[in-house]
Amino acid sequence: MALNTMTDDSAFANERVVALAGGVGGAKLADGLARVLPPGALTVIVNTGDDFTHYGLHVSPDLDTVMYTLAGIAHPVNGWGLADDTRQMIEMMKRYGDEAWFGLGDRDLATNLLRTHALANGWSLSQITHDLASRLGVTSHLLPMSDMSVATNVDTIEMGILKFQEYFVRHRWQPVVKRVLYEGAESAYPAPGVKEALETATMIVICPSNPVLSVEPILRVQGMRAALEARTVPCVVVSPIVAGAALKGPAAKLMAELDLEPSVIGIADYYGRLIDGIVIDNEDSASSQHIKQPSLASNIVMREVTDRVRVAREVLAWNKELMR
Amino acid sequence: MALNTMTDDSAFANERVVALAGGVGGAKLADGLARVLPPGALTVIVNTGDDFTHYGLHVSPDLDTVMYTLAGIAHPVNGWGLADDTRQMIEMMKRYGDEAWFGLGDRDLATNLLRTHALANGWSLSQITHDLASRLGVTSHLLPMSDMSVATNVDTIEMGILKFQEYFVRHRWQPVVKRVLYEGAESAYPAPGVKEALETATMIVICPSNPVLSVEPILRVQGMRAALEARTVPCVVVSPIVAGAALKGPAAKLMAELDLEPSVIGIADYYGRLIDGIVIDNEDSASSQHIKQPSLASNIVMREVTDRVRVAREVLAWNKELMR
Repeated sequence: MALNTMTDDSAFANERVVALAGGVGGAKLADGLARVLPPGALTVIVNTGDDFTHYGLHVSPDLDTVMYTLAGIAHPVNGWGLADDTRQMIEMMKRYGDEAWFGLGDRDLATNLLRTHALANGWSLSQITHDLASRLGVTSHLLPMSDMSVATNVDTIEMGILKFQEYFVRHRWQPVVKRVLYEGAESAYPAPGVKEALETATMIVICPSNPVLSVEPILRVQGMRAALEARTVPCVVVSPIVAGAALKGPAAKLMAELDLEPSVIGIADYYGRLIDGIVIDNEDSASSQHIKQPSLASNIVMREVTDRVRVAREVLAWNKELMR
Repeated sequence: MALNTMTDDSAFANERVVALAGGVGGAKLADGLARVLPPGALTVIVNTGDDFTHYGLHVSPDLDTVMYTLAGIAHPVNGWGLADDTRQMIEMMKRYGDEAWFGLGDRDLATNLLRTHALANGWSLSQITHDLASRLGVTSHLLPMSDMSVATNVDTIEMGILKFQEYFVRHRWQPVVKRVLYEGAESAYPAPGVKEALETATMIVICPSNPVLSVEPILRVQGMRAALEARTVPCVVVSPIVAGAALKGPAAKLMAELDLEPSVIGIADYYGRLIDGIVIDNEDSASSQHIKQPSLASNIVMREVTDRVRVAREVLAWNKELMR
C-alpha cells in the first residue's frame, strides 16, 4: 500500500498521539510527530531501562536523546548528546587515571547535574523530566516509562551479565547476547500520566527503536502490555530494520542472536497483536506479503528534519486510515 | 633585616614543614615550598570553610586551588581553576534558565564529581583529597583542616548573613562585613594527620592568605590554636597585604570593615603570639619598626614560579634563623 504524503496537518488537529520511544531513531520520529501535531498533542513514553549511575550522576540516555531532539539541540551527527558539546570533563577524568568509557559531554553534564540534584531532593524522575524539557522549550509531553528503577541487563556468552551501558557503550555491543533481563520491570509502576495518555490517545505509535532493548522494557512495566492489548485505537510500529540491517545500533545483530528474524517480518512478529500495522521501507516492500499485519511501505530512513516530518505525516495518516 | 637568596636547597633536606593555606596566594607559596623541599617534606593544611554544595556537588575551592597549583595544572592567570578549562556546563545551565553564578569549569567538574561520589560512598574528605592529589602527581601532603563541615559565613550590613561563596563570588565581596562566623568550627576535629604534622614539624608557615577568611577557619578547628600556641618550632607568616592593599581579594577591605588595621602591622597584630616573625614586602619595610614581632623584608609578590621558589627559600632560611 502506498500513500501520498500529506501536507495539510489540520487533519491531525484533534489527534492525541502516544509514541513509545528509545534513543536516536525513536527521537527522530517523535520530533517529526511533534512538528506535525498541535502543541501538547504528543506524549512520548521513553525507555529508562538504559538509565544508570555514573560518577554519582543519574544518567538517562534515552530521555535526554528524545528531549534534546525535541528541543532542537541534539548533536546533528550522533543523534545523541548535545550539539557543539565538548569532552573536557572526560579528558580530566583520564588525567585522574579513570577509564572514562562513557562519553558524557560537558554541556550534557548540566542536565545530569540538575536531574541528579532534583532526585536527591525528592523529586521524581517524571517531575524533573517535565521541568527540564519545559525549560528547553519542549511542548510535547515527555514521560519516563516509570519513576521506579528498571535495569536492562544483557546476559552474554563472552562476559556473562552486563549492565546495558557496559554492553552498549563500553563493549560497543560486540558480545553475543543469550538473553535480555529487565530487572525491576515487573514491580515498576508506569510513571504518572503514562496510563492516562494511553487511555485518552487517538493513536499509538511505536517508534523505530530496538524492540528488545528499547521498547520491551517499556512493555514490561506493570500493566503496560495489558494496556496496549486493551487499546481501542490503532497502534502502528515503524520498523527499526531496513533490508535486514538496523538503521543504527545492534537491533539486527541482537535479534539474530536471540533467534528472532532480523527483518521487517521479525519486527512485525515480535510485536504480534500489539500492533495493527507496520511501516516498512520501500526496500522491504517485497516482504509485505509475509507480514501478518497490514504494512505501509515508504522511505523511512530519516536523514533530515524534513524526513522526520514526512514520515510522521505518513504514519499519522495511515493510522487514521486504520482507525476506520 | 635582609637575607641573601639561598640557592642550595640541601640546607632544607631535613626540614618537615607545615603550611597553613587558603586559596591562590597560599597555593603559590605552598608550590614554592614543595619545589624547594624534598618530596613528602611539606604538609599543607588547607582551609575548607569555603566548601559548599553546588548542583549537588561538594565543591572545595581552596583544596582544589592548592592541589591544582602543586600539580602544575592551575589556571596561569586566575590562579584558581584549571588551565585550558572551558565553561560549557555553565553555558548549558544558563540555557536551562539557571543563574549559574559560580563558574565551575568543565575540567574542574571531574574533580568535583570524583570527590562528591567518594564522599557519598563513605570516604572522608581527607581520603579523597589524598587520592586525587596522588593521582595528579602531587607528592606533598595535602590535608583539609577537618573532615567535618565548617562553614565560613559573613554577616553583612546590606544583605545579612551570606554563605562564603555567595559573598565572595556571587556578590564579588562588595557587601560590607560586620562579622565573620565559623559555623561548626568549634565542634570540628582536625583531619587525620593534621595534629601529627604539626607535632613533628620543624617549622610552620602561614601562607599569604586572608587571615580572617582563609586562615582563621583553620585556627578555629578544635585544638588548632592551642596546638600552634604550644609549638616548639618557629612559625612565620608571609603577609597577604602589600602597601595597604591585598595582593588579591578582600583582605584589606574586610580588615578595615572589622576595625583591623589593613596593613602588615595589622596582619602581625592579628596573629600576635601565634607567629615568631612576619615576612613583609620591601614596600612596607618602613613599617617594620611598628611591628612587635621580628620581620623580614623581601619582594613577596609572586608573579612567576621563580618568585614562588625564591620566596619559599627566603621563608625557610629565615625560619631556620629564628630556630636558633
